[in-house]
Amino acid sequence: MTVKIYGFTPAVCPQRVMLCLIEKGIAFEIIPVDLQKLEQKQPNYLSKQPFGQVPYVVDGDFELYESRAIVRYYAAKYADKGPDLFGRTLEEKALVDQWLDIEAINFNPLVFSIVFNLHVLPQSGATGNAAEVEAAVEKLGAVLDIYDRQLSKTKYLAGDRFTLADLTHIPATMYVVGKCGLSQLIDDREHVEAWWKDITNRPAVKRVISMVDSNALSFSP
Amino acid sequence: MTVKIYGFTPAVCPQRVMLCLIEKGIAFEIIPVDLQKLEQKQPNYLSKQPFGQVPYVVDGDFELYESRAIVRYYAAKYADKGPDLFGRTLEEKALVDQWLDIEAINFNPLVFSIVFNLHVLPQSGATGNAAEVEAAVEKLGAVLDIYDRQLSKTKYLAGDRFTLADLTHIPATMYVVGKCGLSQLIDDREHVEAWWKDITNRPAVKRVISMVDSNALSFSP
Ligand SMILES: N[C@@H](CCC(=O)N[C@@H](CS)C(=O)NCC(=O)O)C(=O)O
Ligand SMILES: N[C@@H](CCC(=O)N[C@@H](CS)C(=O)NCC(=O)O)C(=O)O
Repeated sequence: MTVKIYGFTPAVCPQRVMLCLIEKGIAFEIIPVDLQKLEQKQPNYLSKQPFGQVPYVVDGDFELYESRAIVRYYAAKYADKGPDLFGRTLEEKALVDQWLDIEAINFNPLVFSIVFNLHVLPQSGATGNAAEVEAAVEKLGAVLDIYDRQLSKTKYLAGDRFTLADLTHIPATMYVVGKCGLSQLIDDREHVEAWWKDITNRPAVKRVISMVDSNALSFSP
Repeated sequence: MTVKIYGFTPAVCPQRVMLCLIEKGIAFEIIPVDLQKLEQKQPNYLSKQPFGQVPYVVDGDFELYESRAIVRYYAAKYADKGPDLFGRTLEEKALVDQWLDIEAINFNPLVFSIVFNLHVLPQSGATGNAAEVEAAVEKLGAVLDIYDRQLSKTKYLAGDRFTLADLTHIPATMYVVGKCGLSQLIDDREHVEAWWKDITNRPAVKRVISMVDSNALSFSP
């Protein structure tokens, strides 16, 4: 059964799910929801994802939203297929959950503000708020200092294996480094830089980038 | 082995963990970290929880922070003890994860702004920002409308059993309803009101309230 992702490939939240499914070798297709046309706020879509956001996933008769809940689900469901993205023991799994929450709560809001002001608004001809960007960059630097200390102790955020803890950071950080031109946030920190090189060098990341660039709407392993 | 919670009982994030452990019947003790004295920003504490926040849990030689990761861990570890707070199938569990993330991402930041401006600041003699409160109350109302529709279909947020999806909302919402005097946000919505009455009527909730009121620092079932 092919997983259906209601999404918009340039958006980072659907990319989080694409990346997870590609890592796991699970076929999916994208059902486009055009954010620029505000299709995510149409009654039909709101009846599936009431917050009016992508992604939203349909897998047989099971439906789920919230990108981090979706990647947790597939990492658990296909624990033995492809890389183990969660953990073998409850304690390993708990550390992955810890970092998934750190990303959602401490990291993502800052990155969102940066990408919104430096990329999304300018793209639609508006001017981003420079003071907001400056404040977010400073706070994100402090968060990345904490990551750097962690990554001086363990190769990946939740230990010595690549897991969802790392994966969840990739899509939005690619925008910060790329379109927003803020690669120094990464490069100024030795262990973060090595980690970023390592995790973005994965074939699944390259596959997501090429799907987004070519506007491909399906994946099969 | 008694679980050690580094925390501050009036703070809602440690309360989320206390509530979960009481539901499960797991003994714990609170190691006080006085937020008013900024003890959470001391180097010694930062070496354990680098973001300088409570709670932080030590359980034998396992250490964990992020309150929602902690409750996920204990719900999984003690799945068969007390009420099943997660889910039996991967799909049930995924829906609990979905609502845990909705609470963290869509609900909690609004509640935080309300409680901070209407309770925390006034408590220290400062004046809260009324415009910020007004905006947060309006947005929280829209989120609660979504909850109300969900709760018209299922008795609890993630289905027909009380789970972490519900539990995670309790501590901060108690402040909104109580100290902030905004009970109409709940009472104006039929299904939310019935849900709130039901979930706050649980013995574990009463036990947390009495521990906080009496400044009790340990629990044994
Ligand atoms: N917490 C949600 C957030 C989803 C989200 O913010 N999606 C964005 C794209 S990355 C979106 O749909 N934006 C359009 C909108 O909010 O109207 C998740 O992780 O799934
Ligand atoms: N995402 C963290 C947030 C923890 C948090 O915000 N803790 C608050 C108390 S509820 C705190 O320590 N505040 C003091 C501070 O931030 O300095 C969690 O859920 O554990």
